[in-house]
Amino acid sequence: DIVNMLMQSPIEPLLANRHIVITAGPTREEIDPVRFISNHSSGKMGYALAKAALALGAKVTLVSGPVNLSPPAGIEVIDVVSAEQMHQAVMKVVANCDIFIGCAAVADYKPQQKTQQKIKKSNSELTLTFTKNPDILSDVAHLAQPPFTVGFAAETQDVAHYAQDKLKRKKLDMIAANDVSQAGLGFNSEKNALNVYWNNGEKNLGVADKSQLALTLMTLVAQRHTEKMSSIK
Amino acid sequence: DIVNMLMQSPIEPLLANRHIVITAGPTREEIDPVRFISNHSSGKMGYALAKAALALGAKVTLVSGPVNLSPPAGIEVIDVVSAEQMHQAVMKVVANCDIFIGCAAVADYKPQQKTQQKIKKSNSELTLTFTKNPDILSDVAHLAQPPFTVGFAAETQDVAHYAQDKLKRKKLDMIAANDVSQAGLGFNSEKNALNVYWNNGEKNLGVADKSQLALTLMTLVAQRHTEKMSSIK
Repeated sequence: DIVNMLMQSPIEPLLANRHIVITAGPTREEIDPVRFISNHSSGKMGYALAKAALALGAKVTLVSGPVNLSPPAGIEVIDVVSAEQMHQAVMKVVANCDIFIGCAAVADYKPQQKTQQKIKKSNSELTLTFTKNPDILSDVAHLAQPPFTVGFAAETQDVAHYAQDKLKRKKLDMIAANDVSQAGLGFNSEKNALNVYWNNGEKNLGVADKSQLALTLMTLVAQRHTEKMSSIK
Repeated sequence: DIVNMLMQSPIEPLLANRHIVITAGPTREEIDPVRFISNHSSGKMGYALAKAALALGAKVTLVSGPVNLSPPAGIEVIDVVSAEQMHQAVMKVVANCDIFIGCAAVADYKPQQKTQQKIKKSNSELTLTFTKNPDILSDVAHLAQPPFTVGFAAETQDVAHYAQDKLKRKKLDMIAANDVSQAGLGFNSEKNALNVYWNNGEKNLGVADKSQLALTLMTLVAQRHTEKMSSIK
């Protein structure tokens, strides 16, 4: 794990004096007091990124959906359930941060209305209408003074195409794409495979343990962020 | 916990030579490769019942939805995800059992069709149609030679009324009802409050730790099962 990696090779504090906000895990959208809609995100990648950022010297705030992971020592964790709660929490903390990484698998849709009582199964069919949730990543990237914004794309087809489209459409600085359709990778897995894209650049980080991959990705984020800062000055 | 309770007062092996099948946890119904619909069941009550049955001398088979609990030693655990998988697994093992306890929070509905690719959020609204899942409890109770069948009712209103209706409609031998709307009780909680109903009888088991409540309930199940057996002979 990352602690062992740190013991093996000393890490440059590339992110010293940087405040990083990271989202992790799924969100849950309640249908009624009993049922909800969610997704298969375990939060492992986001938590690994938070630990990697800490290891690189950053101050880290982790906004986490419902996961079964222990809050990492030295990291401020804000627990949320729904996409709207995550949106609110992020908007509160993101204003003065340097880097934002949207790693959470935020539910795109929420039920149009939450019923206060459990829906009875009296009908043979049930039709539910869902409306769009706020787009956290896009809202952060469209701030007047946005942080360096990194998104994730979890697609099952045309991964590169969707990732590059999302990068431009949402005005992101960088996007990391993984193919969740590959068995044993991505959601709920210990390993991941990432392709990272930015304006006029890309890098294949290959298949690796999530904590290893997180350190590689955070290092790349730190480099690109520093380049962007020096190009602005 | 239950181990301590066993140390304190010796337990009569009321369920010796009985085979008990118990379902536990939620089920997950997949909408696409990323999204699913589920519910807040933690599986704690079902797992506590399985341990209580083991402590009372039974052979126990636990059919479990996706939970974050360790499989209890001495108990055969069959892991499933969806309601259909749980139905299949139960029907395979229930034929020769003496007692069936349906403690799982089985999803009443599943998406009419699972899409093979992740649904894109191109539309501002999304409408999903759900169809009914098989009714495991009712199917077990309607077998030609049904086991002693115990159901659970997780309601948010008119708990006693719904529970007694479910008892008759599904031909159950017993039903345990808890009011999930009470804060700190039921789903995801360590404690629970149960009211148990059977034909011409009921018992309030009060509020207690789930493992304590499980032992009280299993003892009641064993007594009612024995009474039913002797009335048949």
